[in-house]
Amino acid sequence: MTTPYRLHYAPDNASLVIRLALEEMGLPYETALVDRRQHAQDGTTYRALNPNGLIPVLETPQGPIFETAAILLWLADTHNQLAPSLDSPERGAFLKWLFFASNTLHADLRILFYAEKYIDTEQAEALRTGIRPRLRHHLKVLDTEAKRAPDWLHADHPSVLTYYLACMMRWMNLYPASADRSWYQLADTPYLQQILMQLEPRPATRAAIAAEGLGVTPFTSPIHANPPEGSAI
Amino acid sequence: MTTPYRLHYAPDNASLVIRLALEEMGLPYETALVDRRQHAQDGTTYRALNPNGLIPVLETPQGPIFETAAILLWLADTHNQLAPSLDSPERGAFLKWLFFASNTLHADLRILFYAEKYIDTEQAEALRTGIRPRLRHHLKVLDTEAKRAPDWLHADHPSVLTYYLACMMRWMNLYPASADRSWYQLADTPYLQQILMQLEPRPATRAAIAAEGLGVTPFTSPIHANPPEGSAI
Repeated sequence: MTTPYRLHYAPDNASLVIRLALEEMGLPYETALVDRRQHAQDGTTYRALNPNGLIPVLETPQGPIFETAAILLWLADTHNQLAPSLDSPERGAFLKWLFFASNTLHADLRILFYAEKYIDTEQAEALRTGIRPRLRHHLKVLDTEAKRAPDWLHADHPSVLTYYLACMMRWMNLYPASADRSWYQLADTPYLQQILMQLEPRPATRAAIAAEGLGVTPFTSPIHANPPEGSAI
Repeated sequence: MTTPYRLHYAPDNASLVIRLALEEMGLPYETALVDRRQHAQDGTTYRALNPNGLIPVLETPQGPIFETAAILLWLADTHNQLAPSLDSPERGAFLKWLFFASNTLHADLRILFYAEKYIDTEQAEALRTGIRPRLRHHLKVLDTEAKRAPDWLHADHPSVLTYYLACMMRWMNLYPASADRSWYQLADTPYLQQILMQLEPRPATRAAIAAEGLGVTPFTSPIHANPPEGSAI
């Protein structure tokens, strides 16, 4: 690598969160497209980077890191940006909501998007039906936290967590393309909506839009990606 | 509080992981039983500590922290024990597996235990059937990592992650009491088995056994808790 970081990505996959964080931190990085049409994520080369075959992986001088939130936290701590540092009195609060975003919001989102990985196909829609009110509830809880406006969930400046939430809210708005998405209404979470609106004009977001073809309002009024670097879906 | 920490717990709940970490670090702490028979976790007092109403919460000088893995990471970093420090070359690898344990293994375990929170009761068993092979696969992946024996997943000395995995494997062995548990065989993951065996004689484990009535081999051959402090189930 000619840069310290190489991001293995597919357009509008979870790798988008990492791209946004790298851009916001001003860090140079290379990208490597994981060709999902060819199921590259299941190949031996990719599995050597992440045995779970999931996107993203960030190659670093410490080796490959996977898990979106782990990469975010590692980058934030390593570069001392976009998250409360270890000795900050806000560190504990930041960590509890970062883990909540990862193991509750994102975990439930995966069930909604890939219900067939959890249950037989004929019962997948019943599982989606059970997940939607959970997601609505999680967003309400997060909106209450956003109302409090802690430093790491504030409309005036981003943290790695705000970009993470913004991407998840984008995906709820768009996917699964064939299923009911009327349950998701951005206006139901006005404090998060304010954060998302402030993220959209930022140079980091504009760079991600250009790289992955995300349209002018990728968080508040998203359209499907039209990736100039080559679609992976 | 007369100690810096107060652990809100119920016997054999996720709070057990935090108790083990506090004991292993040698930190003084108080405990407060969350009376699940009275649904105390849904009351306003507890919801003020954790709006999601989940156990555990650890009260700290920084305020209440929830999410098991967030508490573990915060304790490890604050006391510089039981996890690679920020400047360690193993930090990235530790974080990616800690998040995997939290958002994949633990998240799937929650579905197995509380399937009715995700889908209608009549389809809950179908969901459990879909989850079991996933859990088996996650354990296999973790066993491969344990074979590599990194410092934070090593039989010779514990990390916060080894205690976390040990508790989750305990629960797979025991719960749900009414459902098939034959899918879980400790011998299928020999490297993790070795780690669990080494944890059992440690003073921290013995203290947790005494406090929550866990029996002599709580990780490798667990029995149901018989809590001397009062059962919460």
